[in-house]
Amino acid sequence: VVLKRYLLTPGPTPVPDEVLLAGARGIVHHRSPEYSELFLRVLDGLRYVFQTENDILVFSASGTGAMESAVTNLASPGDRVLVASNGNFGRRWQELNETYGAQVTLLDYEWGQKVDPVDIAQALQADAGYVAVFCTQSETSTGVVNDIREIAKVVRPHRAVLVVDAVSGLGATDLRTDEWGVDVVVSGSQKALMTPPGLAFVSVSQEAWELNSRVRNPSYYVSWRESKKALEDPSPQMPWTPPVGVMLSLDKALQLIHEEGLEQVFRRHRILGKAAREAAKALGLELFSLDDPEATSVTAVWVPEGVDGSELTRVMMLTYGVTIAGGQGRVAGKIFRLGHCGYFGPFDIITAIASLEMALRDVGFESQLGAGVAAAQRVFLEEKTW
Amino acid sequence: VVLKRYLLTPGPTPVPDEVLLAGARGIVHHRSPEYSELFLRVLDGLRYVFQTENDILVFSASGTGAMESAVTNLASPGDRVLVASNGNFGRRWQELNETYGAQVTLLDYEWGQKVDPVDIAQALQADAGYVAVFCTQSETSTGVVNDIREIAKVVRPHRAVLVVDAVSGLGATDLRTDEWGVDVVVSGSQKALMTPPGLAFVSVSQEAWELNSRVRNPSYYVSWRESKKALEDPSPQMPWTPPVGVMLSLDKALQLIHEEGLEQVFRRHRILGKAAREAAKALGLELFSLDDPEATSVTAVWVPEGVDGSELTRVMMLTYGVTIAGGQGRVAGKIFRLGHCGYFGPFDIITAIASLEMALRDVGFESQLGAGVAAAQRVFLEEKTW
Repeated sequence: VVLKRYLLTPGPTPVPDEVLLAGARGIVHHRSPEYSELFLRVLDGLRYVFQTENDILVFSASGTGAMESAVTNLASPGDRVLVASNGNFGRRWQELNETYGAQVTLLDYEWGQKVDPVDIAQALQADAGYVAVFCTQSETSTGVVNDIREIAKVVRPHRAVLVVDAVSGLGATDLRTDEWGVDVVVSGSQKALMTPPGLAFVSVSQEAWELNSRVRNPSYYVSWRESKKALEDPSPQMPWTPPVGVMLSLDKALQLIHEEGLEQVFRRHRILGKAAREAAKALGLELFSLDDPEATSVTAVWVPEGVDGSELTRVMMLTYGVTIAGGQGRVAGKIFRLGHCGYFGPFDIITAIASLEMALRDVGFESQLGAGVAAAQRVFLEEKTW
Repeated sequence: VVLKRYLLTPGPTPVPDEVLLAGARGIVHHRSPEYSELFLRVLDGLRYVFQTENDILVFSASGTGAMESAVTNLASPGDRVLVASNGNFGRRWQELNETYGAQVTLLDYEWGQKVDPVDIAQALQADAGYVAVFCTQSETSTGVVNDIREIAKVVRPHRAVLVVDAVSGLGATDLRTDEWGVDVVVSGSQKALMTPPGLAFVSVSQEAWELNSRVRNPSYYVSWRESKKALEDPSPQMPWTPPVGVMLSLDKALQLIHEEGLEQVFRRHRILGKAAREAAKALGLELFSLDDPEATSVTAVWVPEGVDGSELTRVMMLTYGVTIAGGQGRVAGKIFRLGHCGYFGPFDIITAIASLEMALRDVGFESQLGAGVAAAQRVFLEEKTW
């Protein structure tokens, strides 16, 4: 038997065929005029999705590489930084800052809870010494989407620059970089941007460049200054060899996003998230995180009592060909996560839920077949279009 | 007019269609059993090409990212290192080491000359304090291939570990990592491995791991220890999201290399290099570097007197659709470079030379049409197979 496969994880996410094929055309040399045209078009497309006129730096790296660049290009050893963490990727900000010698004050939230902007405001008011605030937009490990608009509002009056990990959020949830005043936004190609992994991005405000000009950390491969120098070349480029195939794919994907329009992209993600949550609840399962209309990228659900979470995801994969994500870190085996950021439509949610209903029975939980599917269908029918 | 394009640069290099298409299949999730199988197969294929049983660490990065990992994971600030440089990529070792605080002693050679192993032997004998020796196998900026076998021989009696940049050399020129005792070999996907850019590799000997265990430099995104931990997972993987598409392509390319057989791969590259050099000489051009049978990856040639080098490469590209490389750094505009590492055969050399003969006339140099082509043909006819 050949099992037809369905990728329903929060990243890497499914990639449209035309995006995959765009990446499979022959190599464009990265110091040619043809490449510069491609790169400029991609930068334009990224500015649209980032909603910014700031510089956008591009790295041949995963999202973590771009996160590292934000830490080493902003915080010198001994500098004080504030990290708001409510999951695995918030913890990554903490680890990166500690690795490179910044002095971290941690606002640590229960996984599944939202970061409270009031706490950030109080920390910044209590102490003017922070050079930067690090937080996460969409916390992929829990599905929580933090309120970046409010966080930006409380950070703005202070000298600290705001750095947001939007790896799984950008292109799924609104993030008005310039309008809200977010200094640094980090993202990657492999989530809502519907492109294979291999490229990561950082948008950098004037304030962030000023902080960078004082940084004493060494940086070479992910150096912002090297990146900016290459951007300012008469033929804009990257300092080191870019993953040209991924760039060709991204070019196509950004065009698709532009055609759909950001507003509709965000609306579609809100509908998908709502359908996933309603389906889980209809099956008698408990959402791991808040039942939040802004939870657009991933839905995290408690594995029911008496069920082995890793067995559940294994059955989903081996019996039904459906790949979903388990829990990370402290909730490994206790939750499962359905991804719906990027190239997802209603029938991906239906597939996820239908296979979940069946797999739950296989592992001994008496789910009501069709009940979750029906709840998702009702959401889509109410919305009419998506 | 649509100009048919020919990519004849030393990297990124042309990629076989089947390798491009292998990368265009749907995304494999990087924490799935299917991915582990793929990754293990790729590691096997890399061990064959690296000729090693050492650990091979894989990064989502360009070659420079893997070079940075070798510097930050081996040399602590203040450590003394020896850098042998005879071109732009030797200089990159110097810059990286200086950026991260190592104390560099530089053996600096004229561009186009080979590194002399005797100089390395003398430096190591004069001073036992070096923790590492950094050098380049194939210096892409000049076409020179350094004698790694002899360099390894003189380094072996000393405590310093030997680190070789083989980004454009690995898979084009013999490099017997284990037999010669090369501690660290750095390479990338986009040169002789016939794969799009996006993956970079480092092989690490036991001695290099010992040096790493004492290193005080911080490292996160390209941390060797993180990489090794992920390799040792029951399902071997990379710590951060890999560029899955590039990995799928690499899997296919490594299979092609295995089918051709390393010995024949090296022989083919020697023939291609010889044909390129003979053709250039037959046109009355002067080779920039030594006329060396081991110069297998790229052929660098002086732009003839009175000709503008950037005009020459521009005409090659715009009139003939042929992309070759100009000079880098101190020889920008003064030399041009024909790439022939990776997926190249005789008629790629013929195309390069025929278009060069024509472009030279366009820019005012009276080349003898067909003379270079004939010289290359004679090389291929003598060899009979390639």
